[in-house]
Amino acid sequence: MEAIIPAKQYEMLELGFIGPEPAGSRVQVDLCGRFTRGERTWTVPGFYAGNGTYRLRFLPEEAGEYGLTVTGSILDAPQTAKVVSAAAAAGRHGPVRAEGTHLRHADGTWFHGFGTTVYAMAHQSRALMEETFQSLENGPFNKIRMCVFPKHYVYNTNNPEFYPFQVKEGREEKSFDAAGLPLFPIEQPERDSYWDVHMPSYDFWDAFEDKLRRMEKLNIQVDLILFHPYDRWGFANLTQEDNLVYLDYLLRRFSAFPHLWWSLANEYDLVAARSLADWHEIEEFVAAHDPYHHLLGNHQCFLIYDPSRKNITHMSWQTKQLFRVGEMQRKYGKPVLIDECRYEGNIPEFFGNLSGQDMTRSFWKVTTQGGYCTHGETYLPGTPEGDAATATGEQDVVWWARGGILHGQSPARIGFLRGIIESLPGPLEPLGAGMSGILGMTDEEIRRSAVDLPEYLAPMLRTICSMERAERDGFFAVEFEYNGHCGDDAFLRYLDDQCCALTRMNLPENHSYRVEVIDTWEMTRETVLENASGLTEVRLPGKPWMAVLAVRTD
Amino acid sequence: MEAIIPAKQYEMLELGFIGPEPAGSRVQVDLCGRFTRGERTWTVPGFYAGNGTYRLRFLPEEAGEYGLTVTGSILDAPQTAKVVSAAAAAGRHGPVRAEGTHLRHADGTWFHGFGTTVYAMAHQSRALMEETFQSLENGPFNKIRMCVFPKHYVYNTNNPEFYPFQVKEGREEKSFDAAGLPLFPIEQPERDSYWDVHMPSYDFWDAFEDKLRRMEKLNIQVDLILFHPYDRWGFANLTQEDNLVYLDYLLRRFSAFPHLWWSLANEYDLVAARSLADWHEIEEFVAAHDPYHHLLGNHQCFLIYDPSRKNITHMSWQTKQLFRVGEMQRKYGKPVLIDECRYEGNIPEFFGNLSGQDMTRSFWKVTTQGGYCTHGETYLPGTPEGDAATATGEQDVVWWARGGILHGQSPARIGFLRGIIESLPGPLEPLGAGMSGILGMTDEEIRRSAVDLPEYLAPMLRTICSMERAERDGFFAVEFEYNGHCGDDAFLRYLDDQCCALTRMNLPENHSYRVEVIDTWEMTRETVLENASGLTEVRLPGKPWMAVLAVRTD
Repeated sequence: MEAIIPAKQYEMLELGFIGPEPAGSRVQVDLCGRFTRGERTWTVPGFYAGNGTYRLRFLPEEAGEYGLTVTGSILDAPQTAKVVSAAAAAGRHGPVRAEGTHLRHADGTWFHGFGTTVYAMAHQSRALMEETFQSLENGPFNKIRMCVFPKHYVYNTNNPEFYPFQVKEGREEKSFDAAGLPLFPIEQPERDSYWDVHMPSYDFWDAFEDKLRRMEKLNIQVDLILFHPYDRWGFANLTQEDNLVYLDYLLRRFSAFPHLWWSLANEYDLVAARSLADWHEIEEFVAAHDPYHHLLGNHQCFLIYDPSRKNITHMSWQTKQLFRVGEMQRKYGKPVLIDECRYEGNIPEFFGNLSGQDMTRSFWKVTTQGGYCTHGETYLPGTPEGDAATATGEQDVVWWARGGILHGQSPARIGFLRGIIESLPGPLEPLGAGMSGILGMTDEEIRRSAVDLPEYLAPMLRTICSMERAERDGFFAVEFEYNGHCGDDAFLRYLDDQCCALTRMNLPENHSYRVEVIDTWEMTRETVLENASGLTEVRLPGKPWMAVLAVRTD
Repeated sequence: MEAIIPAKQYEMLELGFIGPEPAGSRVQVDLCGRFTRGERTWTVPGFYAGNGTYRLRFLPEEAGEYGLTVTGSILDAPQTAKVVSAAAAAGRHGPVRAEGTHLRHADGTWFHGFGTTVYAMAHQSRALMEETFQSLENGPFNKIRMCVFPKHYVYNTNNPEFYPFQVKEGREEKSFDAAGLPLFPIEQPERDSYWDVHMPSYDFWDAFEDKLRRMEKLNIQVDLILFHPYDRWGFANLTQEDNLVYLDYLLRRFSAFPHLWWSLANEYDLVAARSLADWHEIEEFVAAHDPYHHLLGNHQCFLIYDPSRKNITHMSWQTKQLFRVGEMQRKYGKPVLIDECRYEGNIPEFFGNLSGQDMTRSFWKVTTQGGYCTHGETYLPGTPEGDAATATGEQDVVWWARGGILHGQSPARIGFLRGIIESLPGPLEPLGAGMSGILGMTDEEIRRSAVDLPEYLAPMLRTICSMERAERDGFFAVEFEYNGHCGDDAFLRYLDDQCCALTRMNLPENHSYRVEVIDTWEMTRETVLENASGLTEVRLPGKPWMAVLAVRTD
């Protein structure tokens, strides 16, 4: 009689096995589950979890019955079972995947991403991590970027409680002191194989996994950063062979989590020990060993990692050039995530001293174009704002690196924006209005667009065409206006720094719209027109950071 | 016995002659003064001023004696005289000219330009013009951009009291009604020679000249715009032959004013009737017919008019790319004037709805790099802010076009900045600090700069070098930091949107500095350090729009 194993759609199923400690590698263990349903098959390797236990994890994406055969040297014989997956529980939507330039859960629910960044979240004291979870629970974010490895960087030099691997046999334990080290070792140090990647430290992985489970409970997608250069322990300098062993273990353990995304790296191009060929190999390895095809991106400092690569599902872009979201959507046909665009804070470093107003502006700029923006908070330790970042009494706590208490002014506004976006009938697409439409156009496209203009304006477009391309792009970049739409159903104009007393929108003639004026900073919405259509004048208070939303009512 | 004519250095000398009305052209009249002093000679043509009077104007730039011979068909015989020029009166510094990338009066006084824009200033009612002069007298500006011809544009459609030329004989007088016309006729209309450029309207020129004299009294340099496209009267569509006749008269009358600059056009590239060859001819004509070589620029909408041309003394640039001032200084070796970068106001048009804060930011960005910025104010008529633009009761008064009352928030801050800049020992040069230094560098320059860096940062520069040039320039444009210096005597850092609690300056080790923290919006200055040198930490309040000034005290 075959065992019947109950499961739930979009929730990880975990099966446990008892066996002997693996003799060699504790990563490359021989345990495999073969799940079948109709024509489809999922082959998922198990992993060793320490203490004589093996685990096999599976994420059922369909409700119904699956056949299962488990094989492996720890079993006397192959075992079979039937897995019966119940339909998804309320609020369970399945993994997020790319659909065109947007993000959508497996069940079809649009995912409107509003991210934050706590790189070394999982490597902090328990008290600090509790504080971080509390902040996330009360905050507006539904995505977090966090690293697997501990992080060594300014304001963030603490050793973690656990390391992911054991020290190689015969090697003496080092003490990793932050003092006197450069910001991070960009130069390529010797690869000395201090860590034994075949010997995972289960305390590390259990504790890390606990963080992932808690994020899942909070409905927060985790963009898991697999590598990064900010390192003094040697994790940025493993051999490539060791990298793949590390990934093998990670993918066996984590792939069945529904809410994980893979970020190959943070600032991959600053990891001096890795060549581009290494990154391609890493990318291929992750894609080949993840049976569920989670989102897969790679975040750069300077050199964009080619988003047109087959395995890359979206552009994970560090940039301050927020007007280029639409351009990149057109170029790659994939979702554009602005995964670093300066943070709210007051540190001396350029990347981390935006006002709450300016962090909020970034979200509106990106979101209006149908892109996805990522927040960070960086208040200087030792200032009143910096010291408000934790109640644990710990020093040097900066949200962007370590978590703690979110006390900036942008999160409330990001939540306000999220509410508006989630009320729309679908994701936004950029709408090239005014001069913004010209940005990124070829000469030929500009000439074609002249056809729609009053004849007396055509010479102006000819003049524009005669600008050098770089000058033209630079010109229109700083004239950019932020307009998005969901087909004819909704039009959103973000006026950014324009303190207009009046704006004019060209709404479709054949529909009626309710027009709201939105103060993105004061978080107010006021309906100012009903049944508007065609060319519509909207009075505004002459303040910065206003938006106008027109939603179809017929 | 030779007449002795008293004159004053840097002030216009005017000699009058009575004669018959010119028989043909009232522009190309035969009257010429030849002024000599040592090896130098100035040959200046006279002009007909109407009513049987001819005038000859001269600007003595040196104190002392000049020989003068006047010839012309209106004289029975050549007349000679001695001109004795007294030394410059207090406050008279002579014409402004370019020196390297800076502006300097003839007597060596640096000119720190803080401009405003009132395009159709001279074509308004007398009451409105009085109001404008009052505003200028109380304002912070020492340069104005204004047009010779009347202007037809949104918020600015009134006919002037006077036209510069008489209507051609045999032509019926037109009524120039603004109603129903497009914004301005970008298309090339028929050139119908309605105006007789050989027949100046003296009322026009007398009234215009009165405005110039009053600007001189207010110590305001006039960047006189000779052509522009915003026209319904036909001045943008004169034949090229007529253009040169118009210029001939203007240059005969105006060249001897010490405080005039020539701006060939506003948005020259939108004047559909003119080819680039036409503009070159106009440029040559102005340069050849101005004996004093006043500053000469040409302002564009899209296509930069090549500032490397020999006659062009400075770059008069419409741009919002304010981080590029230093780049253009390096490229052309000439002063860079940002003669349009969006205005303070609340109109729907993108160019005119900046907050006072953002207009102030533009001035700080440009000025810190040693460039020169130009203000405008554009509050929407019919709103409380717009209606505050005049007390005359006139409608549609917007400062940028017509003048009136300056009531924006930026002028006070621009005055505050002007006070700081004028207290420095000399003009500022841009200082490439941080990432800003990389903007505009070639690969080779970046590689050379790597030599100065700690060795572990060199790989980062190699990564930067491998970025595509357009991507790299775009990247560093939005990372730009505003730093200027006067040699080792003063260092000015404008932090713009960076809300730092702390900044670090690398002051020379071998000098001592007084360090002030400046709140550019609140207009406060606080000395926070004395005798600072070397790497200096400066505490800041974590607010936007702060600046730090270090002035050498040893």
